[in-house]
Amino acid sequence: MDSAPMSLFASEAERLAEFPVARDSIFLAHAGVTILPARVTKVMQDYLHEACTRMQEFPEAWRATNETRAVAAKMLGAKASEISLLGPTSLGLSLVANGLDWKPGDEVVCYQDDYPANVYPWTDLARHGVIVKLLKPEAPGVITPELVEAALTPNTKLVALASCHFLSGYRIRLNEIGRMLRERGVLFCLDAIQTLGAFETRVDYVDFLSADSHKWMLGPMAAGVVYVREEVQEQLRPTLLGSWNVQSPNFIAQTEIAFERGGRRYEPGVLNVAGIIGMKAGLELLLEKGIPQVSEQLLRLKAKLMDGLEPLGFRFISPKDGPNASGITTAWREEGSGPAADKVFEHLSAMKISPSLRYDRAGKAYLRFSPHFYNTEAEMDRVVGEIAAMKE
Amino acid sequence: MDSAPMSLFASEAERLAEFPVARDSIFLAHAGVTILPARVTKVMQDYLHEACTRMQEFPEAWRATNETRAVAAKMLGAKASEISLLGPTSLGLSLVANGLDWKPGDEVVCYQDDYPANVYPWTDLARHGVIVKLLKPEAPGVITPELVEAALTPNTKLVALASCHFLSGYRIRLNEIGRMLRERGVLFCLDAIQTLGAFETRVDYVDFLSADSHKWMLGPMAAGVVYVREEVQEQLRPTLLGSWNVQSPNFIAQTEIAFERGGRRYEPGVLNVAGIIGMKAGLELLLEKGIPQVSEQLLRLKAKLMDGLEPLGFRFISPKDGPNASGITTAWREEGSGPAADKVFEHLSAMKISPSLRYDRAGKAYLRFSPHFYNTEAEMDRVVGEIAAMKE
Repeated sequence: MDSAPMSLFASEAERLAEFPVARDSIFLAHAGVTILPARVTKVMQDYLHEACTRMQEFPEAWRATNETRAVAAKMLGAKASEISLLGPTSLGLSLVANGLDWKPGDEVVCYQDDYPANVYPWTDLARHGVIVKLLKPEAPGVITPELVEAALTPNTKLVALASCHFLSGYRIRLNEIGRMLRERGVLFCLDAIQTLGAFETRVDYVDFLSADSHKWMLGPMAAGVVYVREEVQEQLRPTLLGSWNVQSPNFIAQTEIAFERGGRRYEPGVLNVAGIIGMKAGLELLLEKGIPQVSEQLLRLKAKLMDGLEPLGFRFISPKDGPNASGITTAWREEGSGPAADKVFEHLSAMKISPSLRYDRAGKAYLRFSPHFYNTEAEMDRVVGEIAAMKE
Repeated sequence: MDSAPMSLFASEAERLAEFPVARDSIFLAHAGVTILPARVTKVMQDYLHEACTRMQEFPEAWRATNETRAVAAKMLGAKASEISLLGPTSLGLSLVANGLDWKPGDEVVCYQDDYPANVYPWTDLARHGVIVKLLKPEAPGVITPELVEAALTPNTKLVALASCHFLSGYRIRLNEIGRMLRERGVLFCLDAIQTLGAFETRVDYVDFLSADSHKWMLGPMAAGVVYVREEVQEQLRPTLLGSWNVQSPNFIAQTEIAFERGGRRYEPGVLNVAGIIGMKAGLELLLEKGIPQVSEQLLRLKAKLMDGLEPLGFRFISPKDGPNASGITTAWREEGSGPAADKVFEHLSAMKISPSLRYDRAGKAYLRFSPHFYNTEAEMDRVVGEIAAMKE
């Protein structure tokens, strides 16, 4: 990477047209809930306008909904028939936990300090006699292939991981872990919400994946992607049943339950069509820019931020570069170096700069910065400058 | 009811402004998927505009989302804390089927010819040793209190019914059936999608209810209402788990699973905020007009249709009036009286008149008319006229 400022837009005008939020503020909370790009808002508004004069499932809307499976599949390296259009993330993860045929004594591996949506569905399986093995990384989210491998036994049925830790921003070595699990015959379920749209997140060695679009995919809430690998669809029985995923010719309930094929298998009823159309536009924007280019820009912004904040007494729990670095940069401040994280958060909010304020299990506060590809190095300079200028 | 044309709008201009669809077409498929009123489109578009420059969960959006619980509760005669904002209908019904503590030998009563989303979640319980008792009404959807009572045994745990049959339009005597079940200590789960927004649908004697907003509530798809009576919330364990419905202070997963209280208990993650805001606008429009007034208008339109079609050789499987009449009017044509249902459907579609074409288990075709309160008697005359004018 060279050090000259770099943008994925032809001009500042183009950037501001696509991301109006950047006109008068610096939004740095894409790991929380994204603002919408203009094109996402526009396609959803246009759809809603049409839905005023035609049935909501008019043919073009229907086609766009189905095309979304292909667009999401492209981003994941999956087949369109492996994509269910369901959100939020927790719903997809619960579908996996509820739909497998668990036997007492089966083991599931997960991580207590993961995002709660990727903890409870698994720890709750203990009620059915499943043994829950909790990973104990050295630092928050530092889930290495070695750590995972050490937790496996002949009884391990599934490993549930996040592609990136929501607090520390540590990104796992997805393919390495996945390949090892595939070789061992262990199912792999991925909560991909903190990387999908920001870093390559391929499912070559993943069996199940869930991610809502409202973070890095730049989409609305409760529209998401659930991936179930074709070869394991028979193992994962749907647990939400309706006329859409159970074969019901002419809306007539059959006496035998036979599931529709493909991604529809897990979708019980009407879809969030407006949301899915928005998600599609967000995914297309990202594919247009290129995920490798997006990742590169995120790492550039991260470096800029860390280089600027480090001299101000900030310390980081997020890797700066390499395969474990992500779009999340989480910082705390050494005592005596200036106002602490919560005070800085308040000050930045007043300046229309929006990182997130997050806490670890011990109650320690952190600033979590999660810019997206449209944020600029100049904006990072501005953030550092605002913090540097703060009075005690 | 007097026989003079009646409207719930001050003027035709007001009617067309709220329902642009009526400018050049006659939409009669609200029992399928509604078109959106202008105000529903507008509040959703406005929300999406704001979501371009602020986090999607900005305070006013958040407030509107929570107010939707109160608005839905008002329509149901429930408490706001009993309302979960989840859709589609099938998801809510599956949550109930999956979340109760079924024992082998428990009995569930349902109806094989009900809408599939209200059949499969219950018949699927047979896999766990639950005994499924299927009601056998004399005619499609004619579920009487006597029929239900006759199916009960000391082992009956739950009765699952639709408030109105999707094909025949037969509306059940909800309160009478519910009161009897309450007295017998049997749980009552209601699929309310074919009445909520059109006819009084109170939960005085209902334990669980699910209804998406995309039919009579005039809202978008995959935004809905799930009602769980306060007194049975402990009996219904959530089966979709996430950081929103399991207590997770500061997004830290706890070692014990403790559910949030109220409607949030069943909502695992982010909500379909855009959709919910649209649903709220639809509900408010209906409450503004008054549900009794809406019902009266629907019965008026039904009478107009039936009186006009009967001389043309049409016969009806829907009650014309009284407590079992609904917004659905389903007709077939006697042979030799003119073009059959499917031909009539094609002709009307070409005229921008949109009833639904539906089939019974035997494959017999029906025209299903489901106008909403904004449709007019003049429009019904037009429909009858178009059919009368058809050549063989």
